[in-house]
Amino acid sequence: MNILDIIAKKRDKQELSEEEISFFIDEYVNGNIEDYQASALLMAMYINGMNIDETVNLTLAMANSSNVLDFEGVFENSYVLDKHSTGGVGDKVTMIAIPIAASLGVKVFKMSGRGLGFTGGTADKLESIEGYKVEQDLVGALRVLNENGACMITQSNELAIADKKLYALRDVTATVDSLPLIASSIMSKKIASGVDKIVLDVTCGDGAFCKNEEEAIKLSRMMVRIGKLVQKETIAVVTSMDDPLGRKVGNTLEVEEVIEFLLASREEIESEKYKDIKDVVFEVVACMMKLAGISDSIRESKAKIMEEIVSKRAYKKFIDIVKAQGGHITSVYMEHLTENIDIPVLPYKAKFMKEIKADKNGYVNYVRTDKIGQALVELGGGRHKKEDEIDLSVGFELKKKNGEYVNQGDCIMQVYFNDKEKFDNAAVYIAEGLKVNDSKVIGTPMILDVITEEDLN
Amino acid sequence: MNILDIIAKKRDKQELSEEEISFFIDEYVNGNIEDYQASALLMAMYINGMNIDETVNLTLAMANSSNVLDFEGVFENSYVLDKHSTGGVGDKVTMIAIPIAASLGVKVFKMSGRGLGFTGGTADKLESIEGYKVEQDLVGALRVLNENGACMITQSNELAIADKKLYALRDVTATVDSLPLIASSIMSKKIASGVDKIVLDVTCGDGAFCKNEEEAIKLSRMMVRIGKLVQKETIAVVTSMDDPLGRKVGNTLEVEEVIEFLLASREEIESEKYKDIKDVVFEVVACMMKLAGISDSIRESKAKIMEEIVSKRAYKKFIDIVKAQGGHITSVYMEHLTENIDIPVLPYKAKFMKEIKADKNGYVNYVRTDKIGQALVELGGGRHKKEDEIDLSVGFELKKKNGEYVNQGDCIMQVYFNDKEKFDNAAVYIAEGLKVNDSKVIGTPMILDVITEEDLN
Repeated sequence: MNILDIIAKKRDKQELSEEEISFFIDEYVNGNIEDYQASALLMAMYINGMNIDETVNLTLAMANSSNVLDFEGVFENSYVLDKHSTGGVGDKVTMIAIPIAASLGVKVFKMSGRGLGFTGGTADKLESIEGYKVEQDLVGALRVLNENGACMITQSNELAIADKKLYALRDVTATVDSLPLIASSIMSKKIASGVDKIVLDVTCGDGAFCKNEEEAIKLSRMMVRIGKLVQKETIAVVTSMDDPLGRKVGNTLEVEEVIEFLLASREEIESEKYKDIKDVVFEVVACMMKLAGISDSIRESKAKIMEEIVSKRAYKKFIDIVKAQGGHITSVYMEHLTENIDIPVLPYKAKFMKEIKADKNGYVNYVRTDKIGQALVELGGGRHKKEDEIDLSVGFELKKKNGEYVNQGDCIMQVYFNDKEKFDNAAVYIAEGLKVNDSKVIGTPMILDVITEEDLN
Repeated sequence: MNILDIIAKKRDKQELSEEEISFFIDEYVNGNIEDYQASALLMAMYINGMNIDETVNLTLAMANSSNVLDFEGVFENSYVLDKHSTGGVGDKVTMIAIPIAASLGVKVFKMSGRGLGFTGGTADKLESIEGYKVEQDLVGALRVLNENGACMITQSNELAIADKKLYALRDVTATVDSLPLIASSIMSKKIASGVDKIVLDVTCGDGAFCKNEEEAIKLSRMMVRIGKLVQKETIAVVTSMDDPLGRKVGNTLEVEEVIEFLLASREEIESEKYKDIKDVVFEVVACMMKLAGISDSIRESKAKIMEEIVSKRAYKKFIDIVKAQGGHITSVYMEHLTENIDIPVLPYKAKFMKEIKADKNGYVNYVRTDKIGQALVELGGGRHKKEDEIDLSVGFELKKKNGEYVNQGDCIMQVYFNDKEKFDNAAVYIAEGLKVNDSKVIGTPMILDVITEEDLN
């Protein structure tokens, strides 16, 4: 078997066998296949596509390219779940959903990535909390999981190293946004992480990687099918990312919103203010409960989720996980709750705030949510390149969301920043991403589809 | 401008601009674009194709990537021509055509490549002659050209270095056999070599790169069009390479056949024995005469060519060029010519000869001429890899050509070799390439098409 024949085969639109894909992955990891050969093959895969068998074989070859974890025997009678989002602007669902799910008895082993480009990463966001260690060794992570029912760490460098190496190459060869390559990249890490079942939040819209619903559904079906074929039951929730999720964007700011949401009253959670976060979080957690075998009824689960939040048990679980991972906690008196509450210490505060004001009367429209994400990168709150350091304090607070009416001069958005030049750069992107329109644009529902194994034909 | 956008554009089937192609070539040569990025772009070009504008721009960018020669003022009132073949098994046309053309007053600056894979290279073949220096510096080459009307050297490392670098990359990334990439590779070297006009012998069949006529014609039209657009008039002769050309295959053996042909009588040249060589050589030289402005009538030119050979003036020119390039000459008495003849010294002789015999009565059929070429590589007479040393002495003498009748046990082919194990390996390929059939297979004509600027729509 040789790599030239394999490249030529895919170049000529033929199907690669399991052996050919394994040969490629193994020899690439061993250094016997050069980057320039791998990139030629990736481009052929990108353009000519991969069928489901090829995608599954690529996924498994990457998953098995290094250590594969195994939770066998860690929990008796409990599945270990993962929850993964394909990312978006203001996407803080992981930090909310996991404590709720864990509080309801779901075991969650969550490894999060770091942000790159216009989408953030949960690992960065968690580092906004003083002392929080996202880089745990696996023994430490298992201890947190065992004691708290969940852990939230960053991706191990030791798992799916083929994916790590290939992803770095795709990033510099314009071969990132291919559905089979994305599906196999995501699923290979999940499989290597040893979890039993997976809930995927496949975001879709301007502010996500998948720009249209059709593509998001295709990707979702592909991943659910891979999960089925490797006997790791998977549910994909296709969610809208046409607008920033929630009202805060930026690392520290998003953790603030997580705390606010988990401390909110039933009325607040049911209000327009939290509608988008609530819809996604409730759906994702209900799917986790279904996979964990806790409840098959989505409606019942959602009622339980609401109870778990308003009882503050979910918030308590959040604090427990933060503490278990080294996060510092302080107690503050909260007037609206009329009591002392333990909260994580968020040491990063931006020096400056400026308001973005409506230039005319009309309806707010986040026309290009990716531009808002890019504006955050410009402020220093995200990365252009993987090596970039980020500023955890900067970001936006959206005073008006999509479709809300404003009068000229009203504040739409507060921008938190530390560097005036960076603010100016960010303002250019904000101007592209945020418009005031004469007519109201009706947004899509937050939950576009839910794809389970039963939905596969 | 950045390479990722350029790769993405071609990946998405869009046309690249002149600036984008120049940026790619310049920055690749400068080392600012990595091999893995170039190979991703090459694969996208391979799969999605390139239109004629892109192909011309790529050709020019590669031609201009280093020194470009210029024959301005070297010859008053004479064009300088190049003659190029896309290669084949037993293809010795260059060594015959150039002396004839030069003897008839055509100025030819010929840079030949070395063999790789199943097709040989003229530069290697010429090195079968003791003392012959194919690696001339340009001053030396121009001196030979000036004194003899032609020179035959190997490709300069200084010309079209982008093509050199890209070709090496294509070779290891399964992106060789793309028509626009081949056309631009060939034409960039021609343009950089500074010649005014070009005759291309585009070979077609089992024993050539282009396996079918349609593809060969497409490649020919592409190159004639590039020539027109860069004001270097080009004629492409599409020739059959279904069978080995001539009766000798292998470096020294082919030079022997060149000598035999140039010393042959009118009757021999017109006989079946030399039909294939004669048809191609006469057509190619007549096209060279047309481009050089010597004669527009192909029929008249062919009569002149015959005269030039039978008068031995063409042979004399061959000897002059060989001598001028350092080749050693010896005088031998040739019985059939009843005189002493200067011939080049061919020092490499194989130790062993074995005959391949007919396994039954029937008609000889070279079913896979590429296998005969591969058999030569196995004997050591060609290269698997660019770095391989080659054995100039080994090869084949075809006692029977396609369509000739044999009785069981008749000798079809003599194999000259130095290593019995290599013979055994070669014999496997010969068995695949050479069959005896019950019925006679009628070959195609040697000249399949001639494409000039007038033939472009």
